[in-house]
Amino acid sequence: MMKLSHFLRSRNALSEKLLSGKAGHIKDALWLHGSCAGMSTAGQDIATKGNYSNKIFADFSVFKGKAALSMSPVSPRFSKLNSGDFKVDKTGCMMLNFWPAVGQRKYDWQKRQLFALSPTELGSLISLGPNDSCEFFHDPSMKSSNAGQVRKSLSVTPLADGSGYFLNLTVVNNNLKTNERFSVPVTKAEFAVMRTAFSFVLPHIMGWDRVTSQLPTNTDQHTPRAVPQSLDLEWDK
Amino acid sequence: MMKLSHFLRSRNALSEKLLSGKAGHIKDALWLHGSCAGMSTAGQDIATKGNYSNKIFADFSVFKGKAALSMSPVSPRFSKLNSGDFKVDKTGCMMLNFWPAVGQRKYDWQKRQLFALSPTELGSLISLGPNDSCEFFHDPSMKSSNAGQVRKSLSVTPLADGSGYFLNLTVVNNNLKTNERFSVPVTKAEFAVMRTAFSFVLPHIMGWDRVTSQLPTNTDQHTPRAVPQSLDLEWDK
Amino acid sequence: MMKLSHFLRSRNALSEKLLSGKAGHIKDALWLHGSCAGMSTAGQDIATKGNYSNKIFADFSVFKGKAALSMSPVSPRFSKLNSGDFKVDKTGCMMLNFWPAVGQRKYDWQKRQLFALSPTELGSLISLGPNDSCEFFHDPSMKSSNAGQVRKSLSVTPLADGSGYFLNLTVVNNNLKTNERFSVPVTKAEFAVMRTAFSFVLPHIMGWDRVTSQLPTNTDQHTPRAVPQSLDLEWDK
Amino acid sequence: MMKLSHFLRSRNALSEKLLSGKAGHIKDALWLHGSCAGMSTAGQDIATKGNYSNKIFADFSVFKGKAALSMSPVSPRFSKLNSGDFKVDKTGCMMLNFWPAVGQRKYDWQKRQLFALSPTELGSLISLGPNDSCEFFHDPSMKSSNAGQVRKSLSVTPLADGSGYFLNLTVVNNNLKTNERFSVPVTKAEFAVMRTAFSFVLPHIMGWDRVTSQLPTNTDQHTPRAVPQSLDLEWDK
Repeated sequence: MMKLSHFLRSRNALSEKLLSGKAGHIKDALWLHGSCAGMSTAGQDIATKGNYSNKIFADFSVFKGKAALSMSPVSPRFSKLNSGDFKVDKTGCMMLNFWPAVGQRKYDWQKRQLFALSPTELGSLISLGPNDSCEFFHDPSMKSSNAGQVRKSLSVTPLADGSGYFLNLTVVNNNLKTNERFSVPVTKAEFAVMRTAFSFVLPHIMGWDRVTSQLPTNTDQHTPRAVPQSLDLEWDK
Repeated sequence: MMKLSHFLRSRNALSEKLLSGKAGHIKDALWLHGSCAGMSTAGQDIATKGNYSNKIFADFSVFKGKAALSMSPVSPRFSKLNSGDFKVDKTGCMMLNFWPAVGQRKYDWQKRQLFALSPTELGSLISLGPNDSCEFFHDPSMKSSNAGQVRKSLSVTPLADGSGYFLNLTVVNNNLKTNERFSVPVTKAEFAVMRTAFSFVLPHIMGWDRVTSQLPTNTDQHTPRAVPQSLDLEWDK
Repeated sequence: MMKLSHFLRSRNALSEKLLSGKAGHIKDALWLHGSCAGMSTAGQDIATKGNYSNKIFADFSVFKGKAALSMSPVSPRFSKLNSGDFKVDKTGCMMLNFWPAVGQRKYDWQKRQLFALSPTELGSLISLGPNDSCEFFHDPSMKSSNAGQVRKSLSVTPLADGSGYFLNLTVVNNNLKTNERFSVPVTKAEFAVMRTAFSFVLPHIMGWDRVTSQLPTNTDQHTPRAVPQSLDLEWDK
Repeated sequence: MMKLSHFLRSRNALSEKLLSGKAGHIKDALWLHGSCAGMSTAGQDIATKGNYSNKIFADFSVFKGKAALSMSPVSPRFSKLNSGDFKVDKTGCMMLNFWPAVGQRKYDWQKRQLFALSPTELGSLISLGPNDSCEFFHDPSMKSSNAGQVRKSLSVTPLADGSGYFLNLTVVNNNLKTNERFSVPVTKAEFAVMRTAFSFVLPHIMGWDRVTSQLPTNTDQHTPRAVPQSLDLEWDK
């Protein structure tokens, strides 16, 4: 279980500079927002046992008047089969972090809220037309006894002048009796970065880059007789 | 012939959970649906002799009311030439698995049917307009003595409200006197995932990522005299 | 000069099967159509001295009534600088091979003609609208004393029913007094494969995948003082 | 600090041929235009201490009547955290070099001007419609005491006949009392190369290829109990 959380973390480097967070707090923070689902209930013990070496962190961030938004990909989690092979145990995601402005060019990273986009939600954003809008609803505790206590919704709506989109995150926490709202306007150019980078990331968080990146093996020089030559022709038509 | 089937397998991890299939059956199952063509007639002995180590399995699946659909890329098969070089012996494919619902959120993986998309069929799907439709016909035994006994057709048609596509697989087996039909509606977002991931996969199943991923060699420092400088200018214009 | 032609070769594996070409002829054939320009005048001695090991060959081919067309990427050629660094000495290309039908489903690979698409020509094809057409003119001996003796032109025109494109290659050889013409209709699906695969290949034949694939180095842990922090902000805006 | 500038350099190989620049000057030149920002004030001592080995240089260049334009990607700079992990310390960029024609097919590389495109500026170019235009303003000394002394602006405007775009770079240097202007018309095909290659490069200069290229680790074979199975279902819906 040592390397369980190898792919499960993402971190906003910028926040360090902005907020002077103590280095000693980083690991916990990573775990809290690094997993694609269930991070609020997952045991901290897994994170603290994790083997943290040679990770690479990279974010794309936009800073606007009322809030900031940063994005970073979270790789899928693989598990080993009895056969020695690997399978995707948990699909990766695109982790969004919203955090509020607390002054001119000052943002409070401690008040951030996360929203993890699944592959299909990325597909929705990638194919969004200039006048389209979409909305996603998440319940971090879905199907557990805590279901319904925290509700998150992310809506993406076109700006009136067609110059981009509004990203609105609403987080209602019935436990804490809080209702937070983050509004980040994204320009057409910024959304093009998102669309291009999300398209790049999508096959990776699905684990398909692993399947295709395996090197060619020393396959035998002769065509195996068990596969009739004629069958191969289906693909030559 | 040890590593012949290195790239020829794909597996739906989810089905394990859903159906509690025995681990001991996995290898055979892999072989049965892992090759891009001719899997129904290929000798099992090849599979059982295969060297199964360090494979990576990853699927994209959608679960709908009447059936489920999972997709995973199958890499091309390479063969070694006398020169020591490799060539693509068999192009890879996108393997689709359709399997029926047998209750609420229950699907029967044993009743699955396969459909392997060739590069050109992927091209057809990738370039499908919002109102376009397409249909592919496969005969797993084409040009063998069993030709015509099993006929498969996959049609992709736009949903009436423009919100996605219908994927319909029909499998007529004259031997078994069966006629199976699988209907899976795919949302615009899910189709965007397919389009993006298929576009990523296409060069890989063609083997073109291998050609381009070779590292630069220690080419000589001097321009070879045999290639007149002037000829190079064709590419500078 | 041993590995000079490492990237310069491409081969159509299928033609072997179709035409039963002798294996002993492969190396010369490779050289003849493997370089992006100037192959007709380049010295054979370079090819025969080349170190042929562990190459990977992969083509995409379409077979039509009057002719066949195969495509394969040719990687750029790198040369070593005095500093020990590498630079792209010659941009790669997309090598097209046209060869005529000489009977039903029979094609004569010996009568093939080559056309090497430059990055900008690939850009032209990638951005071709459904009703657009384009034409490229090549003179393999451009700016040499043999200029004008062989003229090649490739035109791409939309099919009347909008179902794809016509690729027409004309090769006029004033030396041999020959005028060859190859016509290959390409379906919308096949062109989608070309567009997708050409888009994938383009950065590779430009050598840009090499620039970006270098691993992160052990850069120093501290921000260098020589770069004022404020300057970095240009990219944070 | 040895490898600080590993990714910070780009070089136009062609200029060597055109201008016969002395090899001994290359390193300084590289530093001068290899960083994405602040190169005019950065200390030369960093560059001269750099470890120059095994770099790969690749440009895409267009040569037009009044000026030439070359482009090459500059990778991000990583810094090591106390944890041993890496983070993107400085996003990469697309470095543009404009240099003037000084005769027929002769260009003066010594008079080149640089313009480094940020990820968002690349997003703007990638999403540019056929009739759209955009303009970027840079001040290499922004927020320093030299702010406003040098002003650069790059405008991209559609050609009147819709056959491409005009790229205009203006550099006003109040110190040197100079006002330089470079005009490079770019065809639709050349812009398609730029769009395709910029889309490829964008995730790399953001550092996202590093995050996703990490190999799967030997994750444990068993599903961790601390993550309730039900939570995972959020991504299966």
